Amino acid sequence: MRFDHYIPTKILFGSGALSELHEQALPGKKALIVTTAGQSVKKYGYLKQLTDQLDMSGVSYALFDRILPNPIIEHVHEGAQLAREAGCDFVIGLGGGSAIDSSKAIAVMARNPGSYWDYVSGGSGRGLPVPNDPLPVVAITTTASTGTEADPWMVITNGEEKIGFGYDKTFPVLSVVDPQLMLTVPPRLTAYQGFAALFHSTAGYICKYADPISDLYALKAIELVGKSLAAAVKDGSDVAAREDVALANPLAGMVESTSSCISEHSLAHARSAYHPEIEHGAALIMVSRAYYTHFAKSGVRDERMIDMARALGKSDAKSPMDFVEALAELQQACGVDSLKMSDYGIGYDELEKYACNARETMGGLFEMDPAPLSDADVLEIFRRSYR
Amino acid sequence: MRFDHYIPTKILFGSGALSELHEQALPGKKALIVTTAGQSVKKYGYLKQLTDQLDMSGVSYALFDRILPNPIIEHVHEGAQLAREAGCDFVIGLGGGSAIDSSKAIAVMARNPGSYWDYVSGGSGRGLPVPNDPLPVVAITTTASTGTEADPWMVITNGEEKIGFGYDKTFPVLSVVDPQLMLTVPPRLTAYQGFAALFHSTAGYICKYADPISDLYALKAIELVGKSLAAAVKDGSDVAAREDVALANPLAGMVESTSSCISEHSLAHARSAYHPEIEHGAALIMVSRAYYTHFAKSGVRDERMIDMARALGKSDAKSPMDFVEALAELQQACGVDSLKMSDYGIGYDELEKYACNARETMGGLFEMDPAPLSDADVLEIFRRSYR
Repeated sequence: MRFDHYIPTKILFGSGALSELHEQALPGKKALIVTTAGQSVKKYGYLKQLTDQLDMSGVSYALFDRILPNPIIEHVHEGAQLAREAGCDFVIGLGGGSAIDSSKAIAVMARNPGSYWDYVSGGSGRGLPVPNDPLPVVAITTTASTGTEADPWMVITNGEEKIGFGYDKTFPVLSVVDPQLMLTVPPRLTAYQGFAALFHSTAGYICKYADPISDLYALKAIELVGKSLAAAVKDGSDVAAREDVALANPLAGMVESTSSCISEHSLAHARSAYHPEIEHGAALIMVSRAYYTHFAKSGVRDERMIDMARALGKSDAKSPMDFVEALAELQQACGVDSLKMSDYGIGYDELEKYACNARETMGGLFEMDPAPLSDADVLEIFRRSYR
Repeated sequence: MRFDHYIPTKILFGSGALSELHEQALPGKKALIVTTAGQSVKKYGYLKQLTDQLDMSGVSYALFDRILPNPIIEHVHEGAQLAREAGCDFVIGLGGGSAIDSSKAIAVMARNPGSYWDYVSGGSGRGLPVPNDPLPVVAITTTASTGTEADPWMVITNGEEKIGFGYDKTFPVLSVVDPQLMLTVPPRLTAYQGFAALFHSTAGYICKYADPISDLYALKAIELVGKSLAAAVKDGSDVAAREDVALANPLAGMVESTSSCISEHSLAHARSAYHPEIEHGAALIMVSRAYYTHFAKSGVRDERMIDMARALGKSDAKSPMDFVEALAELQQACGVDSLKMSDYGIGYDELEKYACNARETMGGLFEMDPAPLSDADVLEIFRRSYR
């Protein structure tokens, strides 16, 4: 057994945590606030709550509010330019995974020359070393989804490549996970996001680089999603359910920081690179039953599949396929069991292209899989999942 | 629910981890190596392994090898002076808790004026803010005991005060937990140290500031000690058992970083302040059955006591006192069930003095207890434990 453990982010968790931000030592005097193009952070007052806290801390700020749900490289470069021009010495990501991932990428590019794609590994990314340390990042999450507030990863789309990238210096220095900011997330998105947190955890648990500490985070996150996601979908104002799902989120990020995603993410990103309107969670949900069936039947992670079924609430689980069954039941309880790729405009004849893109752009994640997954297997998973 | 999570230390865990140290970015160009006055790190070649790694990294070093098993403030000041004189820009603690705790305190005092006791809170410590950031610390542990490689705490003795102190800046930046360095620890010390890791975890699990993430670390550490400590005591070359107990150690530190110690440590430190030859684990073991009986009978942590009994291996546990029974069984299996205070020269008539010292020097930990523990209760615990 040989593994490293490194999660340097300070996480403030719990209802009201944002209102205590001014008590923290912030990493600079002028922030670039990076947030989404949508109106929700303004409409629900989260942006105002944040700027009130900055005012109390004597920190000034500039605002970059153009980030798309599947964030693009053009906005990374624009945000970085604004950070430089406005003299910002740190970056605050406010929103879901898209805003926070973008804030990390902007923090890198505010201090470094060239294109963001010069540093990305995979696809047409050049994989060059990043010469200068990024600006420090503070992450304030308004969704329970990608776990990005507790990991170094950022997923950005460049043309038809959607690639995850990150390294030791791209962990946020400080993250706020305040379930009060999540009460307004609508049911459908709550479900998609909760399943994203779930799949980050299940991936890390069956990944071949799982370790005894990543296992703790993974099983706890799976348990919390199994216990409370359907309740949070059913009644968004159920604070106890929101808290459980909110906690699953940094735990899922901690799994991604210690173990790794596996190829399911490559399969998801390949489709949303071409169809950016597909929510990340939805892209994962649509292939998940076929995907996990492949590994359940591979025989390489039998005990772990059973552990996950039990964590998800199926206390009498005895076989690997019990996990797939528990997953299907949770998807039904959350009303996301009949998502269709065709509803997002994906044609059956495009599936081969996605199988190819998955390996070309994020081939590295296939190396994390517990058993080999061939191109033919990927295509088969896509086909079985297609509706 | 509202809690913070912050453990910025990068931990390299596993057999052979020390041999990979040169692959890490070290935090300076000249190290002060702080180690114990005993010969074991030299005799077994651990110091040589470390300096070979530093040579490969092009890092020079000075050596301060005077640390006592219960480290004293005089050596903190001496070490800090040497660090300054030799121009060291970081500190490496090599050894058990005493060496690593001292390395943290030396790192503070190398950059700050006055006495270390100016900054300590509790007892006659002045509790002043520390003006300058400490030097970075690298911790290389040769025992599975205090968890100090994964927490900010340092316990130093000043006259008859033995007090724990630490803050956000005193986490090691990098820690190496290599079970290969622990194979030479003799059986008696293996047992004492393993119980120290256990009690750090049980304390954090019943502490009133436990949180859902500290609980994960605590139960896993308890499980690992329950599973493998007796085997490691019986056969020190049992690598699998050593690995389990070695992993319990940073997990116990992570508990102390997220939850807290409780008053059992005040009871232990009070005695070893006067009798520095008492090993930390032994001081804890001697009062542990009476101490945990008090809380088992208090009715405030019934479910958690049962969780701990189960984690320790008593799968059919049903009552809080089952934990005390599981503890007694493990102490018997490890040959430490009949430790006597009188063997360390402690007289029955001194017990009142220790009850008093415990609250005077480390009163803060009583605030962490799940239920009130009066001076009379402390004295009663000492008296019941006395042999």
